[in-house]
Amino acid sequence: MAGKIVTLLTDFGTEDGYVGAMKGVLLSGDATLQVVDISHQIRPFDVRQAAFALYNYYRFFPKGTVHIVVVDPGVGTERTGLVVRTADYYFVGPDNGVFSFIYEYEVFKGFRIEEKKINPDASATFHGRDIFVPVALKLLAGEDLATFTTPYARFESFYEKYRQTGAKELRLKVIHIDHFGNLVLNFTRQDWEQLGKPEGVKIRLKRGFLYGIQRTFGEARKGQILALWDSSGFLQISQNQGNAARMLEMNIGDELVMEI
Amino acid sequence: MAGKIVTLLTDFGTEDGYVGAMKGVLLSGDATLQVVDISHQIRPFDVRQAAFALYNYYRFFPKGTVHIVVVDPGVGTERTGLVVRTADYYFVGPDNGVFSFIYEYEVFKGFRIEEKKINPDASATFHGRDIFVPVALKLLAGEDLATFTTPYARFESFYEKYRQTGAKELRLKVIHIDHFGNLVLNFTRQDWEQLGKPEGVKIRLKRGFLYGIQRTFGEARKGQILALWDSSGFLQISQNQGNAARMLEMNIGDELVMEI
Amino acid sequence: MAGKIVTLLTDFGTEDGYVGAMKGVLLSGDATLQVVDISHQIRPFDVRQAAFALYNYYRFFPKGTVHIVVVDPGVGTERTGLVVRTADYYFVGPDNGVFSFIYEYEVFKGFRIEEKKINPDASATFHGRDIFVPVALKLLAGEDLATFTTPYARFESFYEKYRQTGAKELRLKVIHIDHFGNLVLNFTRQDWEQLGKPEGVKIRLKRGFLYGIQRTFGEARKGQILALWDSSGFLQISQNQGNAARMLEMNIGDELVMEI
Repeated sequence: MAGKIVTLLTDFGTEDGYVGAMKGVLLSGDATLQVVDISHQIRPFDVRQAAFALYNYYRFFPKGTVHIVVVDPGVGTERTGLVVRTADYYFVGPDNGVFSFIYEYEVFKGFRIEEKKINPDASATFHGRDIFVPVALKLLAGEDLATFTTPYARFESFYEKYRQTGAKELRLKVIHIDHFGNLVLNFTRQDWEQLGKPEGVKIRLKRGFLYGIQRTFGEARKGQILALWDSSGFLQISQNQGNAARMLEMNIGDELVMEI
Repeated sequence: MAGKIVTLLTDFGTEDGYVGAMKGVLLSGDATLQVVDISHQIRPFDVRQAAFALYNYYRFFPKGTVHIVVVDPGVGTERTGLVVRTADYYFVGPDNGVFSFIYEYEVFKGFRIEEKKINPDASATFHGRDIFVPVALKLLAGEDLATFTTPYARFESFYEKYRQTGAKELRLKVIHIDHFGNLVLNFTRQDWEQLGKPEGVKIRLKRGFLYGIQRTFGEARKGQILALWDSSGFLQISQNQGNAARMLEMNIGDELVMEI
Repeated sequence: MAGKIVTLLTDFGTEDGYVGAMKGVLLSGDATLQVVDISHQIRPFDVRQAAFALYNYYRFFPKGTVHIVVVDPGVGTERTGLVVRTADYYFVGPDNGVFSFIYEYEVFKGFRIEEKKINPDASATFHGRDIFVPVALKLLAGEDLATFTTPYARFESFYEKYRQTGAKELRLKVIHIDHFGNLVLNFTRQDWEQLGKPEGVKIRLKRGFLYGIQRTFGEARKGQILALWDSSGFLQISQNQGNAARMLEMNIGDELVMEI
């Protein structure tokens, strides 16, 4: 009985009580659920931030967990509501790119939610409460997907691989800036291994270069800029005990050249 | 055993550990409780924001849930601590208007907390931890209200209905601005039905008019301003994928004229 | 089975999914755990704010609770990871001062975490997920501390007592500013009792004096500045329904003279 888990990721903030309403509906459906807050502080409508956050936590949860993501600027339009099923998890949310990393790193199947079968009286502005949470409850109760979804195959995704622009030159993009100002790049340890683990990498900054990929912050002085693997395997540029994004005046989408 | 639920709404922020202390006292009283965070980001002392948030979530929780609200600028003064009982819920908090919407939309009974019977050593500044949480534990344990409260009948409320200022003219007030900048007005779908569901409503803005009440954001272009029913049945003015409050430079308390 | 509790205090924010990852690992270890959010809004790297928050909540939790604190600017360096054991609790986190108040107010024993025995593949940047959470799971499962720690005796602490600088003169320091702008001083009710409970205390401000220690906000007019005991027994300077830190333009570390 114990152990049914739902996670919640939204851009709602908490202060209006909207997230509270979702929790109420979840617990009214099953008062023994573990409802796990991931975040409600995603920047309003920022599906990329949501997608990256999701990648950082989804795979650590027990098999059977249902991950709800509601960053949904298109609510009330014709955008599709999705269930995405992988070997271990269900994902529930809008088809707007929030599951981009899942499509890249998991074997999955997708299903379009038939909204009328879930809740004919759904609010046009709050599918989190009226569609996605009821769907999660059905999944946790073991209901047959065929009774409230249809197979679906066209998924929105913004995942973008780094580009090789010369024999020894790669162009990387900043895909995320985290709470500490670390700049996360679209280049993973796995990408690096596939290139033969080049040791002498060199990243061009506005002023000067970063040499090599460090193992940890401990190899830098306070305030120093360094490149290292983040805890999910992406290359990141960090300032030891500082904020690299602010220091380097860089934003999401900015490009960097790496020589290998 | 499972299924006892307490919700927490405060203006404490989380970073001082005050909310943590309340959770500790709750779980020391009953380690099997579901303690549900609603928000701790209510603006300091903003009882109106708390009241509106409460309205958005309270009714979705299972019967028997105890809703604690601690936005309490008058803590340590003679202001009354309350238990409000409705058919399905208990509400616990100060008598300062945080329950205004409950009084308007529910049949209820009120009880004044006898603080000395709860905790003669209560801190003068932290009734959340020392009075309201112990009261919630007594309610969940099924203790007789008569042993720690007395009936109470004078309730603070700021609920204010819209005003009809002409045969075809209503004056509405902005009663809440949510996380997305939506302007929530003191006019509900029920009010609209009682007026005979007038179709051609017209809301006067500083520049121009809004015509009609839309069903959803999907009926507007990106950036467009529109009026629609929010997910709790209030009329709201929104900017599709934008922030209406910022766009229209409007604040809580501002008035709008609606022609019907 | 029910009743195993872990609390989480971090400076991670929630929006990157890092806290979500910690929760996932915890629930994968034991899906019946109560995982209690204290805060993830500690200012980045601010071990003092974390230490003060911890003092405000730790002692209200049931015996056996494991308190995890991850404010860890030195992650990936040689800084020690700690388990601190008191009569009722375990504390898990880095040795950088976050447990300063515990050392001052509790009888305790300290243990150095042998990281290689916990997780030889730990990320160099995320010990919260890869070291501290696995340690908490071992503690909750009742594993013998000797199998993954060694005794430890040199603890970082920044606790600082007030100074007596004259027969009738004390120098107090602002050690914390809370969410409401209350200035918390390093002078406790116990300190005051040890001085013989002097009634006529006088605190020198930039302009004028504060006379006496009030019992509650209720004894002040709106906007008035007063000194009173906070809910953990520290002397604090507050503005009734306002923000004392902003009003008095004072910061953490500032000194005040109190005459007794």
